[in-house]
Amino acid sequence: MAILQPIHNIAEIFSRKNVKTAILCPGSRSAALTISMVRHPDIETLSISDERSAGFIGMGMAQATGETVALVCTSGTAAYNFAPAIAEAYFQEIPMIILTADRPAEWIHQYDGQTIFQREIYGKHVKKSFELPSDYSNPDAVWQIERVMNEAINLTQVHPKGPVHINVPIREPFYPTAEEVISFDRNVRIIQNAAIEKKLPNQFWIDFKEIWQNSENKLIVVGHRQSSELNKILEKFSEELCVPVVADIISNVNNIDPILADVFLSSKNESFKRKLKPDLLITCGKSVISKNLKIFIRNNRPTYHFHIQENPDLIDPFQTLTHKVEVSPEYFFGQLFEDLDFLNFREGDEEVDNEYFEFWNEVSKKAKQKLNSFLNNSDYCEFKVIRNVVDKLPENSIFHLANSMVVRYSNLIGLEKGKNIEVFANRGTSGIDGSMSSAVGSALKTDKIVTCLIGDMSFFYDRNAFWNTYLPDNLRVILINNHGGNIFRIIDGPSKQLEVGDYFETKQNSTAEYFCKENDVEYFKVNDEASLESALNLLHQKTNRPVVIEVEVDGSRNAEVFAEYKKLFTDFT
Amino acid sequence: MAILQPIHNIAEIFSRKNVKTAILCPGSRSAALTISMVRHPDIETLSISDERSAGFIGMGMAQATGETVALVCTSGTAAYNFAPAIAEAYFQEIPMIILTADRPAEWIHQYDGQTIFQREIYGKHVKKSFELPSDYSNPDAVWQIERVMNEAINLTQVHPKGPVHINVPIREPFYPTAEEVISFDRNVRIIQNAAIEKKLPNQFWIDFKEIWQNSENKLIVVGHRQSSELNKILEKFSEELCVPVVADIISNVNNIDPILADVFLSSKNESFKRKLKPDLLITCGKSVISKNLKIFIRNNRPTYHFHIQENPDLIDPFQTLTHKVEVSPEYFFGQLFEDLDFLNFREGDEEVDNEYFEFWNEVSKKAKQKLNSFLNNSDYCEFKVIRNVVDKLPENSIFHLANSMVVRYSNLIGLEKGKNIEVFANRGTSGIDGSMSSAVGSALKTDKIVTCLIGDMSFFYDRNAFWNTYLPDNLRVILINNHGGNIFRIIDGPSKQLEVGDYFETKQNSTAEYFCKENDVEYFKVNDEASLESALNLLHQKTNRPVVIEVEVDGSRNAEVFAEYKKLFTDFT
Repeated sequence: MAILQPIHNIAEIFSRKNVKTAILCPGSRSAALTISMVRHPDIETLSISDERSAGFIGMGMAQATGETVALVCTSGTAAYNFAPAIAEAYFQEIPMIILTADRPAEWIHQYDGQTIFQREIYGKHVKKSFELPSDYSNPDAVWQIERVMNEAINLTQVHPKGPVHINVPIREPFYPTAEEVISFDRNVRIIQNAAIEKKLPNQFWIDFKEIWQNSENKLIVVGHRQSSELNKILEKFSEELCVPVVADIISNVNNIDPILADVFLSSKNESFKRKLKPDLLITCGKSVISKNLKIFIRNNRPTYHFHIQENPDLIDPFQTLTHKVEVSPEYFFGQLFEDLDFLNFREGDEEVDNEYFEFWNEVSKKAKQKLNSFLNNSDYCEFKVIRNVVDKLPENSIFHLANSMVVRYSNLIGLEKGKNIEVFANRGTSGIDGSMSSAVGSALKTDKIVTCLIGDMSFFYDRNAFWNTYLPDNLRVILINNHGGNIFRIIDGPSKQLEVGDYFETKQNSTAEYFCKENDVEYFKVNDEASLESALNLLHQKTNRPVVIEVEVDGSRNAEVFAEYKKLFTDFT
Repeated sequence: MAILQPIHNIAEIFSRKNVKTAILCPGSRSAALTISMVRHPDIETLSISDERSAGFIGMGMAQATGETVALVCTSGTAAYNFAPAIAEAYFQEIPMIILTADRPAEWIHQYDGQTIFQREIYGKHVKKSFELPSDYSNPDAVWQIERVMNEAINLTQVHPKGPVHINVPIREPFYPTAEEVISFDRNVRIIQNAAIEKKLPNQFWIDFKEIWQNSENKLIVVGHRQSSELNKILEKFSEELCVPVVADIISNVNNIDPILADVFLSSKNESFKRKLKPDLLITCGKSVISKNLKIFIRNNRPTYHFHIQENPDLIDPFQTLTHKVEVSPEYFFGQLFEDLDFLNFREGDEEVDNEYFEFWNEVSKKAKQKLNSFLNNSDYCEFKVIRNVVDKLPENSIFHLANSMVVRYSNLIGLEKGKNIEVFANRGTSGIDGSMSSAVGSALKTDKIVTCLIGDMSFFYDRNAFWNTYLPDNLRVILINNHGGNIFRIIDGPSKQLEVGDYFETKQNSTAEYFCKENDVEYFKVNDEASLESALNLLHQKTNRPVVIEVEVDGSRNAEVFAEYKKLFTDFT
């Protein structure tokens, strides 16, 4: 048996526990992990050199599939370059296993190359952190490795899902001899974690239904990333029970006419907003983009606010929470609908007073029309470009939104009902550091068209997303290039500062043209509405290379249009 | 007084305590820090968008000057992108202050954007981690901020120097109103830290001199980064006391004929190496590149091994340490030379038996000649290219070595005595993630020519080193492009694995041509010795843009030549 057999067996445990994809970053210390992952027949491996990008590519894959993806790196700062993606995975609850090869503990901080303090390096941004033994002669060491690997993989999939770190000290020799055959022990231990169903007792439902029935105005607000199963249930709440469902573009409630409240809740007319005040607020999901929505709820406090989420942390961004319900939203809303449905059947359909529901919908439609007519009449600018992009997205496709302005603009526009577009965004930490890599990861896991809408700062920050040999044909990057962090010219504070150009917006001249030549990527330049229109056809065509559509826009003009837009909705009622 | 006055005053404390350079990464949460640093008349500020590169640019500056450089970023994963540079600074003992803006503690993990767990985020890679208060109404809060800033800056400069982290929670509003004048309080508290001189008591010297006089074969080995003051003293040890001084290229012992032992200590002739065995070994400095040197010492154990370094950690990479001496090498060797000189004066010059010294020097010269004649007769390849580059480096210039193969090759070659070339390399963690950014930082702090010798993996990994508006004219990047991690084809283990091409070497086709066009950088392509020769003239000329010289070499040929070289020295005596 090879000395490193227990390390090789990690690949076998991965494959048996459904960890089917490993991102391998080159290095010597991690060779045994690399070689065994590559040679295992059931594991798909990718070699990515920049660990920062590699981390986000892996995260994008796990985000898209829900399956645990492994990251593997050598010792040293490689591990730290994974950290931004791991923090994002932690807050987005995305299942990942991170294996960081290391020197044996006795060689840490002994002036040997590529050695840092890797134990617990990700702090609170992983669900748990393990360290494997570096000697395997005692059978307990093998038992430990197998047990830890099982625990780690299980943990990634237990709600709240998330990343788990395993530091792997490895002694030389790292490489098998040329004759040595790498084999996998089929008898490796597999420890299953029984799935748990979390249910609410009868008394909860009795109490809750009383609140439900006594609450005149009921409102559902959905945060980041819901499932299609949940969508079907929410559709019934909206269409059969007439409960308004407010959602962001990233909430993926894409089967009902979405109420995107961000636009009209910017109104300064407080009496108008009071009419929208809920008595019972039910929220689910993670973060909400709309600051206007958060302020609206805080100022128009519901009597009851139930938050439905399996995460045990007490998170209260509206500052109005009264009840925390640690079950899945699918179960909660499914069970509630069934109960209400049965009640209606038994007691006869109650006449639903849907004035509140109608008002939300009416306001939403009116705001949408007003916004569209404003954009139709406005010049070529970022806001209009993004509206046109969002409208033109193909059915059954994936939409990756980068952070900063593009996600905010898109959230004012929203997706058409029924086009079955799935939206992803790195809203766990809202960083600009890995949006394009996440989209690459996502595109590698689907045949659908993946459109990544991104600003120039995020694009160039994460340009190493393209520094690999796996770029998928189905990837479409729409780069909105305003040559700087245009957000700083648009939001109130910095635009008035002397430093706005050099220290906030940080003007930069880069365009993607040379970048695309270097990476052998299809490149289209857009300067006006007509060229945009024709470029957007590429979202509907197959190509044999990924495509970058670079949309040049003028930062000052964007700021003017956005200011006009804000003014337009100040008195909205 | 502005609400954020205590935050603005940080700029004043910086300037009064000699923190004169701040790297500012754009963001809203950090606006008060950005604005006050920019407006303070005595602080030089740079705005760099990719925090990973920003961290290394700042580190390169602090490395070059010895002065504390500040890094400032907004909240979220921005802080994590600094981490690789901070780890490097920690192990290289480079003074840095890291200010990470944050949300107030009550908003951590409450689904608010750009929020991660920033408290103590750098773990053991900073000397200390602080958090400032977020409310300033109580005068004790102001006292705390001023005290912490003083402590933090002082700490960066106390041996062992290093990075210190301050997390800075800041409440809205972030921006001053347009009318508000940012002022700095001249009465801000400044707490000086008295400099300490660490001396050794008389008894130590009595004991040590006895060991010195009773030890026949005395050897000095110098690790990473020494000062020119030390060099002057070591020169006396070598030239007057005939003690061999062995050093790496990164040790900067550039005023005596350096003994670069890496070449001849690769000999497998153990009886030859036994003749080089020291009785008394004195080491100073940090890590040593040469693995052959480490193995030689481990196998030829000195009776006494004194390590001279102020760092209190017990670090023993040769595994032979007998005495740890926590004073500066300048004091130790200076005092020792004085004492020995006085002794010689009083007792008459002892006849120095310099057989051991002569043997080291003779072997060193012979090896150097053999290597040079080998390279003169070999084809165009990486090893030869690097020899020619090193030989052609201008006097009084700076040489930045990236990691992986270039630093190893360069360490076999060594610098000519007396050319006054200062060498830098990120050997704290030996990562490939920030070598070019460090060179940019260094070049920004000098008028000398800065030559960065770098392989293609490190170059493209850190390509955002060029994504800023400060690229200095005096920067020369020599990119050795073998289109992959050629090291994996050169070292023994991976070259024999099936996966060498795809998973270790990770072949990539990128060249720097488009990169240089995009960044408006002078570009020269080298394919043979003649074109190299003419390109190297650029190291001796002023230009009005930075220059990238891309040297194309063939990875397989490099591996063959390196194998021949190794064979040549197997029986060296």
